[in-house]
Amino acid sequence: MKEDKLREECGVFGIWEPAGMQAAQSIYYGLLALQHRGQESAGIAVCDTVGPMGNICSHKAMGLVSEVFHQNTMESLKGNIGIGHVRYSTTGSSSTENAQPLVLNYLKGTLALAHNGNIVNAEELRRDLQQGGAIFRGTTDSEVLAYQIAKERAASASIEEAVIRTAEQVRGGYAILIMSPRKLVGVRDPLGLKPLCLGRRGRSYVLASESCALKAVDAEFIRDVKPGEIITITEEGVRSDESLCQKEHAHCIFEYIYFARLDSDIDGINVYDARIRGGRALAKRYPVEADLVTGVPDSGLSAATGYAKQAGIPFALAFQKNSYIGRTFIKPSKEERESAVHMKLSVLESVVRDKRLVLIDDSIVRGTTIANLITMLRDAGAKEVHVRISSPPFLYPCYYGTDVPDNSQLIATTYSAEAICQKIGADSLGYMELSDLQEMTGSLPLCKACFDQQYPIEHGGNHE
Amino acid sequence: MKEDKLREECGVFGIWEPAGMQAAQSIYYGLLALQHRGQESAGIAVCDTVGPMGNICSHKAMGLVSEVFHQNTMESLKGNIGIGHVRYSTTGSSSTENAQPLVLNYLKGTLALAHNGNIVNAEELRRDLQQGGAIFRGTTDSEVLAYQIAKERAASASIEEAVIRTAEQVRGGYAILIMSPRKLVGVRDPLGLKPLCLGRRGRSYVLASESCALKAVDAEFIRDVKPGEIITITEEGVRSDESLCQKEHAHCIFEYIYFARLDSDIDGINVYDARIRGGRALAKRYPVEADLVTGVPDSGLSAATGYAKQAGIPFALAFQKNSYIGRTFIKPSKEERESAVHMKLSVLESVVRDKRLVLIDDSIVRGTTIANLITMLRDAGAKEVHVRISSPPFLYPCYYGTDVPDNSQLIATTYSAEAICQKIGADSLGYMELSDLQEMTGSLPLCKACFDQQYPIEHGGNHE
Amino acid sequence: MKEDKLREECGVFGIWEPAGMQAAQSIYYGLLALQHRGQESAGIAVCDTVGPMGNICSHKAMGLVSEVFHQNTMESLKGNIGIGHVRYSTTGSSSTENAQPLVLNYLKGTLALAHNGNIVNAEELRRDLQQGGAIFRGTTDSEVLAYQIAKERAASASIEEAVIRTAEQVRGGYAILIMSPRKLVGVRDPLGLKPLCLGRRGRSYVLASESCALKAVDAEFIRDVKPGEIITITEEGVRSDESLCQKEHAHCIFEYIYFARLDSDIDGINVYDARIRGGRALAKRYPVEADLVTGVPDSGLSAATGYAKQAGIPFALAFQKNSYIGRTFIKPSKEERESAVHMKLSVLESVVRDKRLVLIDDSIVRGTTIANLITMLRDAGAKEVHVRISSPPFLYPCYYGTDVPDNSQLIATTYSAEAICQKIGADSLGYMELSDLQEMTGSLPLCKACFDQQYPIEHGGNHE
Amino acid sequence: MKEDKLREECGVFGIWEPAGMQAAQSIYYGLLALQHRGQESAGIAVCDTVGPMGNICSHKAMGLVSEVFHQNTMESLKGNIGIGHVRYSTTGSSSTENAQPLVLNYLKGTLALAHNGNIVNAEELRRDLQQGGAIFRGTTDSEVLAYQIAKERAASASIEEAVIRTAEQVRGGYAILIMSPRKLVGVRDPLGLKPLCLGRRGRSYVLASESCALKAVDAEFIRDVKPGEIITITEEGVRSDESLCQKEHAHCIFEYIYFARLDSDIDGINVYDARIRGGRALAKRYPVEADLVTGVPDSGLSAATGYAKQAGIPFALAFQKNSYIGRTFIKPSKEERESAVHMKLSVLESVVRDKRLVLIDDSIVRGTTIANLITMLRDAGAKEVHVRISSPPFLYPCYYGTDVPDNSQLIATTYSAEAICQKIGADSLGYMELSDLQEMTGSLPLCKACFDQQYPIEHGGNHE
Repeated sequence: MKEDKLREECGVFGIWEPAGMQAAQSIYYGLLALQHRGQESAGIAVCDTVGPMGNICSHKAMGLVSEVFHQNTMESLKGNIGIGHVRYSTTGSSSTENAQPLVLNYLKGTLALAHNGNIVNAEELRRDLQQGGAIFRGTTDSEVLAYQIAKERAASASIEEAVIRTAEQVRGGYAILIMSPRKLVGVRDPLGLKPLCLGRRGRSYVLASESCALKAVDAEFIRDVKPGEIITITEEGVRSDESLCQKEHAHCIFEYIYFARLDSDIDGINVYDARIRGGRALAKRYPVEADLVTGVPDSGLSAATGYAKQAGIPFALAFQKNSYIGRTFIKPSKEERESAVHMKLSVLESVVRDKRLVLIDDSIVRGTTIANLITMLRDAGAKEVHVRISSPPFLYPCYYGTDVPDNSQLIATTYSAEAICQKIGADSLGYMELSDLQEMTGSLPLCKACFDQQYPIEHGGNHE
Repeated sequence: MKEDKLREECGVFGIWEPAGMQAAQSIYYGLLALQHRGQESAGIAVCDTVGPMGNICSHKAMGLVSEVFHQNTMESLKGNIGIGHVRYSTTGSSSTENAQPLVLNYLKGTLALAHNGNIVNAEELRRDLQQGGAIFRGTTDSEVLAYQIAKERAASASIEEAVIRTAEQVRGGYAILIMSPRKLVGVRDPLGLKPLCLGRRGRSYVLASESCALKAVDAEFIRDVKPGEIITITEEGVRSDESLCQKEHAHCIFEYIYFARLDSDIDGINVYDARIRGGRALAKRYPVEADLVTGVPDSGLSAATGYAKQAGIPFALAFQKNSYIGRTFIKPSKEERESAVHMKLSVLESVVRDKRLVLIDDSIVRGTTIANLITMLRDAGAKEVHVRISSPPFLYPCYYGTDVPDNSQLIATTYSAEAICQKIGADSLGYMELSDLQEMTGSLPLCKACFDQQYPIEHGGNHE
Repeated sequence: MKEDKLREECGVFGIWEPAGMQAAQSIYYGLLALQHRGQESAGIAVCDTVGPMGNICSHKAMGLVSEVFHQNTMESLKGNIGIGHVRYSTTGSSSTENAQPLVLNYLKGTLALAHNGNIVNAEELRRDLQQGGAIFRGTTDSEVLAYQIAKERAASASIEEAVIRTAEQVRGGYAILIMSPRKLVGVRDPLGLKPLCLGRRGRSYVLASESCALKAVDAEFIRDVKPGEIITITEEGVRSDESLCQKEHAHCIFEYIYFARLDSDIDGINVYDARIRGGRALAKRYPVEADLVTGVPDSGLSAATGYAKQAGIPFALAFQKNSYIGRTFIKPSKEERESAVHMKLSVLESVVRDKRLVLIDDSIVRGTTIANLITMLRDAGAKEVHVRISSPPFLYPCYYGTDVPDNSQLIATTYSAEAICQKIGADSLGYMELSDLQEMTGSLPLCKACFDQQYPIEHGGNHE
Repeated sequence: MKEDKLREECGVFGIWEPAGMQAAQSIYYGLLALQHRGQESAGIAVCDTVGPMGNICSHKAMGLVSEVFHQNTMESLKGNIGIGHVRYSTTGSSSTENAQPLVLNYLKGTLALAHNGNIVNAEELRRDLQQGGAIFRGTTDSEVLAYQIAKERAASASIEEAVIRTAEQVRGGYAILIMSPRKLVGVRDPLGLKPLCLGRRGRSYVLASESCALKAVDAEFIRDVKPGEIITITEEGVRSDESLCQKEHAHCIFEYIYFARLDSDIDGINVYDARIRGGRALAKRYPVEADLVTGVPDSGLSAATGYAKQAGIPFALAFQKNSYIGRTFIKPSKEERESAVHMKLSVLESVVRDKRLVLIDDSIVRGTTIANLITMLRDAGAKEVHVRISSPPFLYPCYYGTDVPDNSQLIATTYSAEAICQKIGADSLGYMELSDLQEMTGSLPLCKACFDQQYPIEHGGNHE
């Protein structure tokens, strides 16, 4: 079912601890809390701010955080500052070469970089860097970023200045952590497309993609990093540079709809609350006579709760998840495909039998999963299945770091809502109205380009 | 948190398919659906009813079903009948030697056996068998059962007769599947302590611990195997022997409280419905002024739903689970212990802040997990936390196949409910009343010995 | 090339150490020294003679000794006595189930058994045991032996008496180690077909298939176990029972020809010396005008040295081995087959160019390897290649524990020496004369049944 | 024992095959034949000369060739040209990051590079490149080489021109293979310190560190690449550029003494023959009354054969190797250290008892292994042990790619030959005279700097 979802591409976590402490353990727990943002590779790089300058230790590999790191690996990662990364990758380029953090040796020493997001003008920057002699190992924009920072470092007084100069030149959505031998630098794109927040635990400072990772290491949330802000953490504490901050912001709505964890707060908005409000908006826009509201686990449960409250219809869990279906699971052959959904989710017949249901999910990508679930609900005796989707139809590509399937695989680019309703076998189908999206997040300025094609950044049209 | 739960010890699945079909694939999916009944080892044994007599192929190993079986292993398991097994084991004796199915070569040929449950007089039978020269490899009662059947087979006209003779001698709770070269035999203990059901898919017949495993292989539920019944499936179809059936039954209440999957029906009672009724009974017995009812994921969610309905208080999910915390996860050291619970469950603050909560779980074993959760809820701003447990205090050992911690680790054997309430930091604590248990399952006769010491079978006092 | 050789089936090693010492480490090194006797599975079982009676710890798995045992496994194997085993298995039945030592629980407690050899009347014994109710897990004669000993133990005053009673009933070639909770027992077949020797290190006693394993643990060689002797090692020291000893002996000639390690002494004969004498006998029987004598590495090198000395022709190493070609090596496809030999052995051209060569090997099984080597030698410029084989043509099956290919794969059963000479492309071919074999081992009585069909034990004709 | 040896650092293998053929399989066999040159990591990169330009597939990892590559990896490596690499690394920097081939993306496209040797002025070049903005991932000189070539490519008409320009600037010993999308380029340092040869199989061309790798893929040896020569293989065939060729050569004597495989020919000298002549020279210089000449397996066997011939004393193998002692072998603890040598080598007592021996090895590094072997020989009854070493005392570091221990670990830098003789317990000790070295290789100009400090290239003194 994961394959039938959009994918966030990465999560980042960095920590500065007082000399003598070990950063790696906290990064491990932080990355575990961010695992939902990327499950194909994981990595940690650490450095000691005392002792020989610039000796960065790192480990990264394909797999989940708990698969990549073992006790002895952890013990070898010595240092009081560090950054970590979890990553999805688009099909085909899944490889260890692209795992992060990147570690570089250059004229000014060493640096490590972890990056969530996408740089729209990466190819242009890559060409410029190549013209200047740069040699790349892979094809990621993260490598371009790292090289650009290293290049700017030559003409800069400090790593943070190099980051500013780089940020001046890149366009896109990003949250970047840079570790130089004595500093931890975090930067967020000026539109605030990608989330990044700051926390503290005792004398330690943490930067993380989501606030849930702060809680995972018992750090207290200080604030979100401002769009365009550059945070530098050193022995002297936290400094902020706001020279790139701007008034126009465009926060990614999909963080609230699906990507972020329910217990995170992003830019002042609690994710769970946003989803509850989304569900309420759906109920106001598309009411229906029904006996029960339920959601597709786990992505549709919160919106379903909101819908139920607003509509005054009881909410109930209607599916049983099999949490033992891992990645090494032998999938049924094509003829047995229906069984695959059966394996992952079962219907609680006594909940749905003879009931008129509202079924909520966060989005429809290919439409295959929701169609299977509707069939299962009907087989279990549901009388009606009214589908409500807590986002508008997904129509346009994202250039800022969300991995979306080809247009040809997006059901909404080919079919009308009515046709989709029929294809998936629902009694009715309601998508969140574009104009209702704002109800989720109040006055927060949003990027909704995947729904309305209003791209906040010119992108030239080629999406790497 | 799993460590702070009682453990079912096993799940079994068997299938007879028409000659030419391959049983292993269905057994694989059946075992995946029964994985919650045992996660330490898994095994499959298959046999061809055509071709050379008695050539049993088997594979078993420590680990989850999806870890133990890979494509090439599956392809090597050729045969149209087969049985499978998932197993927990008590600490210390986790080993490949004890994994099932057991495969034996004896005078009358070969047989394979898979067993859920515990034989009370296993040691006695073992001594008799050893007196007669039997040689054992391990210490399980399953090996005793298999040997006894093989011994009885010598004096019997058929494998099913040998099973009957064996069943006449054993006391305990069990569901056993036996595969002889041409037959699949299933037997359930006369009290019905352990569940076993029969299903059909086309011309294939299935025996499984729970009905959820039938659904997983698209088989239709025919009926529960009767307590004491012996089912024999051959080329000629299904035969039943009821010579050991008796009137007194004692179905394990813990299947309904915790072990079985929500979407299973056992002995005519849907597990989800039973839990809903349990929650309702709790609400009637221990009402409280509150704003919200929630449950500990996933074990307390259904009872919480029932409580909420009965009490007219809204139900909400208050915890976010991190499903990426696998078994290889590096646990925090003792000082960081609280973090471990933080990693697995996070509180949705916006749900619980300033709320008076009812928190439901199915049982309290050591009390450590619930105490941590209550602290987390309070830290998140909950004003009151009223704990309701959908089972009575767990006081006595089980002799029929449930793995329970030492008395010394059972909080209820040492402390009164009042003292426990204080220790875990709850505002109030209500355990299901013994007399209310029957509300979960109606007129179904129950074994509640772990709560009331009314053992339906004399056990001599030594629990192996 | 290993596939084109006969296979010894097993090696055994046992040690009794004073209480407080750990036996496992020495067994590990002993098995490493015996690895040439079996490379498919390895196992160790240990037991403490102090502390609770009969608590046997064991570990066994498929693979080489160095693959099966790791530091943490070794540390878990606690006990001051123990036995170990390395095993080949005939094709098809390679499986963990058949790995040894076997560990049994029976009326009198526990025992572990490790066995090298083959029991001719195993099927008969198995039937008797099955008639008496015995239940087997696999199909090995080792399991029959273990069960028979356990059965006899019931009517015996001691484990060693049970071993004597068992030995009275079994026919075949065997070296068996039995560990009961307080004793280590070793027994050798009355004909002395299989080797077994006794050593001492300080207060520890060792039993091993070959003396090279004694050296590996710094133990001094005491003596060979006598054919038919039963050695019992306890706290009181070494006791011997010779009640089954007999005058007729028949030591396996293949131990000297190929199986045993060069640096072992077996029944008073040094293996290296025996091979040197074999080479000398060949030279006397089949002299030839040549410039150089060489051997196939490593099996033909010693005999080649003997031939060279006798013939007064220089010996030289003519092949370079690639020791990095392991078992996971991707073999060339059939068309590239010649390359496979190229990969494992290369000819030293400057050694053989323009030379008339004598090429010695210990035996010819299929003839494919020697044919390839002759081609390689000619390609490298050898003028003549005269092949001398330090054993007679292999014509008859072995019933005592040597794994031999089907008759159909034995070149000598189909072709005359002359025809073989032509097929392999040699200029001449000389096999050791049957009557010359005795030159290798002096007056030692031999079993040469694989060459002359003079089986020292009636075998009934069915070879399991 | 390997730890007590000098280490070659790498082996390279490249092949150009006609379009449609797969290069990877041949590279695999070529690397297996070169495995003795490096055992810590292995890699293959391939490219298709037809189809989309510059799509390089590669796989590399820590481990032996047979561990790194499996059937499915091999199948994914599609392309008709390719290069491969095996690598040792100095302690501490063993890591996947440093494995080769390196694959780069730069302005002119892609290239892959595999390198054996050491660049003396790498740090200087690295600084220049860094000044120009280059960013490195690791610390190897191979990365410097690759970057320099990529940099020069910008101003060059072809990849081979870029290689020439690079070669003009680097100083050191090297054999480099570069794969650009349509070409395979090989270059050898102007002094000829590192070996590289050219072969052909049908229409395919091969470049390899040693001729034994040509034989492994059934390719015929054409010739050694000339010192300073740049070979370019394209669709049009083989082109040679000799613009950097010079008269002064300095071939590494250690290739003949130890590194290269016996069956290789390097610069017109057969390695086996060279060692035989080395043994003869030793015999002339240090004759001794003895009964037997033997060598340390396998490094001393050829020289021992030469010594024996010259001295007229019989040669014999005196040690039995245990070829099952792999890298995962659990080493004895320090107190049991002697056992470790016992495990790997055993003395054939009947060969050495009461004999006066000459024991030959190629070199003495720490002296611990030879000391143990002498003790073992004496324990086995040897009357005298006269050690002869087929190289002079190793006194000076190598700057051209041989990994040598610290001075402090080189016994010859601290002790005189006499003192060493005493420390290792020999009856006499003779090292090859510097002036005799030339007898091994005739008129071939040699680099013997590790013995005589006559470095053929100025190195500035800092050895990276």
